[in-house]
Amino acid sequence: MQKTIDPYGSELVEDYEKIIKDFGLEQFNVDLFPNPNRLMRRGVIFAGRDLQLISKCIKDKKPFYVLSGLMPSGEKIHFGSKMVVENIRYFQEQGAEAYILVADLESAAARGISLEEARKRALEFHIPAFIALGLDPKKTTFYFQSENKDVVHLAFEFAQRITENEFKAIYGNNNPGRVMSAVTQVGDILYPQLKERMPGIIPVGVDQDPHIRLTRDIARRTKQKYNFFLPAGLYHKYTPALNGKLKMSKSHPESCIELPEDIKSATKKIKRAVTGGRDTLEEHRKLGAEVEKCMVFELLKQHLVEDDKELDKIYKDYKSGKMTSGEIKELACEKMTQFMEDFNKKTEKARKNIDKLKFVKF
Amino acid sequence: MQKTIDPYGSELVEDYEKIIKDFGLEQFNVDLFPNPNRLMRRGVIFAGRDLQLISKCIKDKKPFYVLSGLMPSGEKIHFGSKMVVENIRYFQEQGAEAYILVADLESAAARGISLEEARKRALEFHIPAFIALGLDPKKTTFYFQSENKDVVHLAFEFAQRITENEFKAIYGNNNPGRVMSAVTQVGDILYPQLKERMPGIIPVGVDQDPHIRLTRDIARRTKQKYNFFLPAGLYHKYTPALNGKLKMSKSHPESCIELPEDIKSATKKIKRAVTGGRDTLEEHRKLGAEVEKCMVFELLKQHLVEDDKELDKIYKDYKSGKMTSGEIKELACEKMTQFMEDFNKKTEKARKNIDKLKFVKF
Repeated sequence: MQKTIDPYGSELVEDYEKIIKDFGLEQFNVDLFPNPNRLMRRGVIFAGRDLQLISKCIKDKKPFYVLSGLMPSGEKIHFGSKMVVENIRYFQEQGAEAYILVADLESAAARGISLEEARKRALEFHIPAFIALGLDPKKTTFYFQSENKDVVHLAFEFAQRITENEFKAIYGNNNPGRVMSAVTQVGDILYPQLKERMPGIIPVGVDQDPHIRLTRDIARRTKQKYNFFLPAGLYHKYTPALNGKLKMSKSHPESCIELPEDIKSATKKIKRAVTGGRDTLEEHRKLGAEVEKCMVFELLKQHLVEDDKELDKIYKDYKSGKMTSGEIKELACEKMTQFMEDFNKKTEKARKNIDKLKFVKF
Repeated sequence: MQKTIDPYGSELVEDYEKIIKDFGLEQFNVDLFPNPNRLMRRGVIFAGRDLQLISKCIKDKKPFYVLSGLMPSGEKIHFGSKMVVENIRYFQEQGAEAYILVADLESAAARGISLEEARKRALEFHIPAFIALGLDPKKTTFYFQSENKDVVHLAFEFAQRITENEFKAIYGNNNPGRVMSAVTQVGDILYPQLKERMPGIIPVGVDQDPHIRLTRDIARRTKQKYNFFLPAGLYHKYTPALNGKLKMSKSHPESCIELPEDIKSATKKIKRAVTGGRDTLEEHRKLGAEVEKCMVFELLKQHLVEDDKELDKIYKDYKSGKMTSGEIKELACEKMTQFMEDFNKKTEKARKNIDKLKFVKF
């Protein structure tokens, strides 16, 4: 199967090609996965590690797991988390056991947030938001790091398997909070294999690959004792900022939309986004849009349009000049409004049902 | 009350005076404590931090605690641990709540010993040995770090309160295992105050002062949230090596006696020890021994003779030349044999009763 559309500009393509080369990743091959999701079909998922292993589990109906953490340090999440949840959902549908951990020990060690505060935020917002974005709570094991002794025990044991210099080479510093946080994350990633040795896949933004690499190194070094499968990785591209920069960032709020965000504010940002429109309407009709430069189309492609045919039509109309930049912005504003209303409604509903979730206690 | 005897040579005195100055310690004042134990009376305890605070708790019968950890990494302990236990016993008798923790997370993080192995060693040897050396198990709260969530939670929170550079200044490196181990130790030291805010004293060899300083710094930095009392410290001198070096060390086994040790081996080492004897018997009778240079007398003073009058007589006889170096060695061998037999018997008995101990579970 071919990626249906990949209108990324050459600049971005080069960035991601460099990442693949520098980090030693595999290029993502959509043919490995049955019924690929939107992110897979559209090249937003661009790389991985050990994807064959996971593909084989799916095809042979062998047990495997998918895992992600949520850091309850803010009161909003970003589109990157949305992609992670969509990928977890995908693997849940393919038979994976899903684990969602609340990284409360990490948020204490790295950000100074108390465990009580972290718990409150996770239950009131982050977990409901994940469910709103598609996580199937009935098929998910949730836990708080602070309540999972096994993870803590692994973290202390793993600390011995990495040197100061290796750590610094990976993370750039040896801050005590960062050290504790990183080894705990390694504990989380391998923890599901304590009960049953099986492959696992960790969907992340590519900036999180250092954790995957560290975990794979430590899994190799503890092979004799644990014989863990090295975790597979699945990497998505960033959702680019509305001003055309590689990545949305809270430090540039005018071109970054968070979840949730006030609809007025979000649509205002979309209306100021970088598009692929030409200088004049006449030129636009004649030459068509430069779709690969259009951050509004990118938002539609990554997040707001599920149906491939619909996206294809938008692409063609815009590319041919039939659709103007004003029109594509208008469309994106409508879709964003729909999405945000739906997200808020589902989050609220999940919040009300939070007591029904099953948390693992230790 | 005066120290009854302090025949330490000037070299050692200078060493310890320098330590007091460099680390900013208080010189130990035996008058602060009722019924001082042998180590206090004889100047083996030489320094402290915040001792007035503890003295006041004893005199006013206010609650306070004494705490120590045991690192189950070896299968023997050293005379330093014996002194720690004797000091814990002393404070137990003065009304302190005693806590003994098994540093199994630390032995995993810093030495690579599995939790299972650490648990086994602690139950089969280290805890029985502590009881054999005088710890009152009925008045002691025991716990394993790996089972104490509160300690782990404090450790992760505290990691955020110290920078990489501060850590390196204290410990000389930022090894991940060392970092995890140190912040966990801080968690241990302050943990008893989670239930009840009260002063606590930590008896240690002076080389352990960095942990006390780090804990005091972190207690200051978390004052607003926890308002912990800064832990007091009580410092004992090292048991000098039998060859006259500052400290017994396993890397020089010929002048280091461990607990337990085969009696033949221990007495053989004593017979080769540095003494205060003169070159000829005639000279010895005339000038008397140089007691301050005699490692055998030091062993009697620190560990083998409880009664002050008995020690005083040995001191006078040896100092006057009435007792020879051969005789003081013979005496030390007898006392060591008695001590080791008693230690082995009591350890064995405590091991048989290990199931009766109360461990805190979390």
